Amino acid sequence: MSDVAAIDAAARVLAPAAVRTPLLESPLLNKQVGYRLLIKPEVLQHTGSFKFRGAYNRLAHLTREQQERGVVAYSSGNHGQGVAAAARLRGLDAVIVMPADAPEAKICRTRAWGAEVVLYDRCRQDREQVAEALAAERGATLVPPFDDPLVIAGQGTTGLELAEQALALGVTLDAVLVPCGGGGLIAGVAVVIADRSPRTRVLAVEPEDFDDTVRSLTAGRRVANPAGGHTICDALMVQRPGALTFPINRALLAGGVTVDDHDTLQAMAAAFRHFRLVVEPGGAVALAAVLAGRFRCDGGVIAVICSGGNVDADLFCRAIRGI
Amino acid sequence: MSDVAAIDAAARVLAPAAVRTPLLESPLLNKQVGYRLLIKPEVLQHTGSFKFRGAYNRLAHLTREQQERGVVAYSSGNHGQGVAAAARLRGLDAVIVMPADAPEAKICRTRAWGAEVVLYDRCRQDREQVAEALAAERGATLVPPFDDPLVIAGQGTTGLELAEQALALGVTLDAVLVPCGGGGLIAGVAVVIADRSPRTRVLAVEPEDFDDTVRSLTAGRRVANPAGGHTICDALMVQRPGALTFPINRALLAGGVTVDDHDTLQAMAAAFRHFRLVVEPGGAVALAAVLAGRFRCDGGVIAVICSGGNVDADLFCRAIRGI
Repeated sequence: MSDVAAIDAAARVLAPAAVRTPLLESPLLNKQVGYRLLIKPEVLQHTGSFKFRGAYNRLAHLTREQQERGVVAYSSGNHGQGVAAAARLRGLDAVIVMPADAPEAKICRTRAWGAEVVLYDRCRQDREQVAEALAAERGATLVPPFDDPLVIAGQGTTGLELAEQALALGVTLDAVLVPCGGGGLIAGVAVVIADRSPRTRVLAVEPEDFDDTVRSLTAGRRVANPAGGHTICDALMVQRPGALTFPINRALLAGGVTVDDHDTLQAMAAAFRHFRLVVEPGGAVALAAVLAGRFRCDGGVIAVICSGGNVDADLFCRAIRGI
Repeated sequence: MSDVAAIDAAARVLAPAAVRTPLLESPLLNKQVGYRLLIKPEVLQHTGSFKFRGAYNRLAHLTREQQERGVVAYSSGNHGQGVAAAARLRGLDAVIVMPADAPEAKICRTRAWGAEVVLYDRCRQDREQVAEALAAERGATLVPPFDDPLVIAGQGTTGLELAEQALALGVTLDAVLVPCGGGGLIAGVAVVIADRSPRTRVLAVEPEDFDDTVRSLTAGRRVANPAGGHTICDALMVQRPGALTFPINRALLAGGVTVDDHDTLQAMAAAFRHFRLVVEPGGAVALAAVLAGRFRCDGGVIAVICSGGNVDADLFCRAIRGI
């Protein structure tokens, strides 16, 4: 299980490699929401999302033999970029399994990091099986997107920085809102916040139709999302909470809220206007929750993590033009 | 004259109020340009540009009597926002003189900071005279956009942070490229870089048609821009170098380069893609200079300042869509 010591160790591993993202705020936005709102922009992390942290920490713990055989990951998005970049920086071979119909730009970018891209047919093949078969065939190590103690510990360094930065500001956080897909980021954040700032509530934010963690917290067990749901938050489209992440989140989270696509687009526009940051839909849901009033609080200090910024120009323009 | 001691003092004044902006880099972009490229994103500063630094430092040095009478500034852009925000944070009254045909959004935002907005007729009135008359009438202090030792010292803290951050990375900067309008930012940066990193060349970057500093450096005296020039870099449209800034820049700059609007739009798109940052045209010219090959270097470490991020959604979309 991921514990605080593992997160402290991950922070030492990541110190020379990852961006220590700043903590930002806008006095105008504070006035608008009625409390002090702090933004942790993981969009400024290498590859544009927090995923680099977990991937780099996982790769740093490979044995010499494992290092020689390289790593495999399946992802059409931020996790694949994170693994590809971490592998390059650590001098390892990486294979990223991506759907054949993934946007050309994402495939090119993954290759630009030096990774080998293996395409699969989204309709006929299961990406997890494709990746597992590849890993077995090459003796490579599979890097899971969230259900791995070292990945969770790496993501938790985001929360460690947040706790340290709040301390430096002389404030106690009343709540931290975190975008939630498989639950790796929020699990790591919850572990370290429970230790460093025990009075701070940690809440999951999910898009409508993909609120598996919120519903699982209510049910007390892992519940899958119904088929056929839709969201613009591609980074948060998972089937169900992770087997490792959910027990942590069930024990530590104070709850969760959901947002709709309109809330998310508005939050992307607010991040553009108030912080000059590019935030992707899945990365903007926590900010969306506070700006749309889905999370209410009277006064105090609230932090939100903007977890990623990889968004196509067209969708970004739709958000900032308000159409 | 602005000296290093004044910049060190400004850093102490700004420490509790300004954002210490990070230093970012992209391994993919490094590979593309062939050297290590470090980005100092002042778009993350309060009000979205470095202008907050100079304004806040100037306001911090008012006497008690001056504080009671407030401040006046003329600007339709970043300087006005910077003065309005600094005045609010220091509890002072501010009047910002803006053209009557300024975009409604900019007027609203200036008022949101609590400043009084006085409109003038761009065709019939001179904004400097309007502001000076207002200041005289109210006994208020005029805060100039660049030609003021305390404003220059405040902007220089950007360079001080850059020098400290390069030191922490263990690198010596070969060159720093800085967007140049009136020359306040680059003058402050040049003063502190000459002291802390004397082997580093500091270069001005200007848009075509508004290359008054580059041409003045060549002429050895202040030369005005010809009338009728055009650029998308509204933040850099000044008539001539400042009376205080130019002697500093003449003594300390290693030269300058120009970019065209196309280079600038491409750099805005690169900042979106590689750094998830919103950079306005005038803020992107230094990045444009390196990406368009207007500044050549073989290897080494180059820093560019992205000085501001206040851009309309339409123009930003034009840049990132590549049309």
